[in-house]
Amino acid sequence: METIQQRFAVTFSYPVIFTQQLFDPQNPKLRDFLSQYGERDFRKKIFFCIDSGVLAAHPTLQSQITHYFESVPTLSLVPEWLVIPGGEAAKNAPALFDQIVEAVDQYGIDRHSFVAAIGGGAVLDLVGYAAAVSHRGVKHIRIPTTVLSQNDSGVGVKNGINYRGKKNFLGTFAPPVAVFNDTAFLRTLDDRDWRSGISEAIKVALIKDKVFFEWLEANAKALAQRDEAAMQYLIHRCAELHMQHISGGDPFESGSARPLDFGHWAAHKLEYLTHFEVRHGEAVAIGIALDTYYSQLTGRLSETDTQRVIQVLHELGFKLYHPALAEQDSVHLINGLREFQEHLGGRLTITLLDAIGVGVEVHEMDTVLIQKAVVVLQGETV
Amino acid sequence: METIQQRFAVTFSYPVIFTQQLFDPQNPKLRDFLSQYGERDFRKKIFFCIDSGVLAAHPTLQSQITHYFESVPTLSLVPEWLVIPGGEAAKNAPALFDQIVEAVDQYGIDRHSFVAAIGGGAVLDLVGYAAAVSHRGVKHIRIPTTVLSQNDSGVGVKNGINYRGKKNFLGTFAPPVAVFNDTAFLRTLDDRDWRSGISEAIKVALIKDKVFFEWLEANAKALAQRDEAAMQYLIHRCAELHMQHISGGDPFESGSARPLDFGHWAAHKLEYLTHFEVRHGEAVAIGIALDTYYSQLTGRLSETDTQRVIQVLHELGFKLYHPALAEQDSVHLINGLREFQEHLGGRLTITLLDAIGVGVEVHEMDTVLIQKAVVVLQGETV
Ligand SMILES: NC(=O)c1ccc[n+]([C@@H]2O[C@H](COP(=O)([O-])OP(=O)(O)OC[C@H]3O[C@@H](n4cnc5c(N)ncnc54)[C@H](O)[C@@H]3O)[C@@H](O)[C@H]2O)c1
Ligand SMILES: NC(=O)c1ccc[n+]([C@@H]2O[C@H](COP(=O)([O-])OP(=O)(O)OC[C@H]3O[C@@H](n4cnc5c(N)ncnc54)[C@H](O)[C@@H]3O)[C@@H](O)[C@H]2O)c1
Ligand SMILES: [Zn+2]
Ligand SMILES: [Zn+2]
Repeated sequence: METIQQRFAVTFSYPVIFTQQLFDPQNPKLRDFLSQYGERDFRKKIFFCIDSGVLAAHPTLQSQITHYFESVPTLSLVPEWLVIPGGEAAKNAPALFDQIVEAVDQYGIDRHSFVAAIGGGAVLDLVGYAAAVSHRGVKHIRIPTTVLSQNDSGVGVKNGINYRGKKNFLGTFAPPVAVFNDTAFLRTLDDRDWRSGISEAIKVALIKDKVFFEWLEANAKALAQRDEAAMQYLIHRCAELHMQHISGGDPFESGSARPLDFGHWAAHKLEYLTHFEVRHGEAVAIGIALDTYYSQLTGRLSETDTQRVIQVLHELGFKLYHPALAEQDSVHLINGLREFQEHLGGRLTITLLDAIGVGVEVHEMDTVLIQKAVVVLQGETV
Repeated sequence: METIQQRFAVTFSYPVIFTQQLFDPQNPKLRDFLSQYGERDFRKKIFFCIDSGVLAAHPTLQSQITHYFESVPTLSLVPEWLVIPGGEAAKNAPALFDQIVEAVDQYGIDRHSFVAAIGGGAVLDLVGYAAAVSHRGVKHIRIPTTVLSQNDSGVGVKNGINYRGKKNFLGTFAPPVAVFNDTAFLRTLDDRDWRSGISEAIKVALIKDKVFFEWLEANAKALAQRDEAAMQYLIHRCAELHMQHISGGDPFESGSARPLDFGHWAAHKLEYLTHFEVRHGEAVAIGIALDTYYSQLTGRLSETDTQRVIQVLHELGFKLYHPALAEQDSVHLINGLREFQEHLGGRLTITLLDAIGVGVEVHEMDTVLIQKAVVVLQGETV
């Protein structure tokens, strides 16, 4: 009997919409999106999951949402909410996943209804995962509330939770139906979270876009002083670069195409070594500094370019060293290389810099030079 | 700030390969597929999950597999197996899902390694789901061992498990990388499982392919007598029709395109009402008979066509009535309509017949006529 070859393409599309005060009754963006989506004559449900940290900082959020939906007769707002502990805790508790799945069942959310998540990257990752596997995928709307989630994690196609201490061990590739980036949420971030997500912009600029890097240099001080207009531009450009990378490459990472992970091998390891006391974005800043020095030590990157990178990180207020990097002569850190390879599968691939704006992939790293780079970083901090 | 519109297409492709004695060292099909897949110079792992019912009927299977892989130096066979209870039990126990995920972790299965499942539709649904969400998707190979899984569930794109009694409540759309249909497995099926999957072929023939239906009429007796050549043809054609439907439509069912579910609204309800004592394929046969009579009662389908459908089901040995259909004047059954709508979302859509080979979608059903059709079925059985 002859082999039957199956082959088809699935198209995914979603807008990332920029706004302020999403739930102001005068703001038509969410309302318009929802009423134009899918079958128009069918009354759709929407169910909200909210990050506890966001709710604490925006105590009137629930009543705002209720009020907003009073003016949208074609939608039926589920009158209960799920408030989810903000931060990495959201991704460590299987019971929270169960709670979302049960809510989907209890409130009769079907594949034509929406599950919306408001929160930081961790809450979005959890809710996105639960939504992706309930009924094999209910429609998911993301409303990211941190810099990192607005410019990176929230605009992409991945979700996930941790499983018995393994970061993002369970998850899917599942694009949302829409993302709403509301700048007003960022005002209540503490300084660490405001700063932390900026490292993803530096990362993507360094490997893809010199002009954007120069903009970051010019605006580093303003950003450090929480200039909102500068942050809006940064988020928009950074989101755009991430999204282009996804659509231009291998969106669901089925082949050997790489995610945008400059500086990330060391960052992941550092998060672990510090039991996530160092935030993802903070760890990425250190990882960028490390791989920048490493790029210089291997003769790829000029001294001047190296100093420009370090300088912009400093100006933004990032710490570029953590004692965990040097523990046991950096052996722990270096183990992170193998773990990084295992997580992605296939052979080791690390992004380095040939110049500002020019990333390059390599397939091995010299452990002695990594140790040297750590020593240089340690010197930097004093 | 301007909206950023994301848009990309992801292409999926996989072969469904027909063979006999897949693990005979002389049989190159699996070996060839594996060594040609992905990065060639990278030594890939393969991990097997096996249906306990299959293992009981093929006690030398594990040693055959071990022996087979001795001749494939580019692959590393994980020396442990996971034996999974066959049948619906596989989908009801969250602990089994956890076991697979843990094995993926423990044996270092990454996104370039394979998880292969050998078994009936239930085991494939469970393993496919666990593989799809581990590391956001490791490569999955299906080796279906029942008629139903070889001609329908195993060649498609869905997986899933039950959640607190809700059938397929958790799952994803995740194509395998390859499917191997080995006829030799079918010899050990009991008569119920041999027959049961044939109803899916009748279903797809009735709504899509009159010529195939006529072939089924001509071969009903041979199939009932377990003629292997006839079964091979049936499985090949049925798989092909299912696969064409998937690739020609909306593979991940994101819009309102329908799965191939003629006869299925009543079948799903009947499986529940009988606590899955009636097999899926058996319930589908009854569902087909019911919706065929209903099509006649509403004046769509001719008397002659109706009788041909009933006749072929009879000849194959299907029972066309179950007392649960009539319980409480069929009110339980009729509730299945709403549940069917809720599971798929959007508005009710039911497939009926205008003629043999010609399905038609309707958006309501007359409950009095459903009750009448049940009474007719009841009469048929005596
Ligand atoms: N899916 C992806 O592609 C992807 C990519 C990168 C990172 N991530 C994940 O994102 C997570 C990190 O996300 P994050 O940096 O957004 O931090 P976070 O989600 O951990 O949130 C940090 C803290 O900020 C609080 N918070 C969130 N919004 C707030 C607001 N507007 N005002 C006040 N407090 C607020 C939260 O409650 C939490 O306590 C990690 O789990 C990481 O793995 C995912
Ligand atoms: N994913 C999909 O698209 C899809 C479509 C239709 C049905 N399904 C699912 O498929 C399941 C039913 O699958 P099924 O009909 O294959 O039955 P099954 O998987 O329930 O298996 C029936 C019995 O046969 C045994 N068995 C399997 N292969 C055997 C062999 N070769 N020899 C001897 N015994 C063997 C099993 O151990 C089990 O006891 C249901 O859970 C249904 O929901 C899934
Ligand atoms: Zn990152
Ligand atoms: Zn079926």
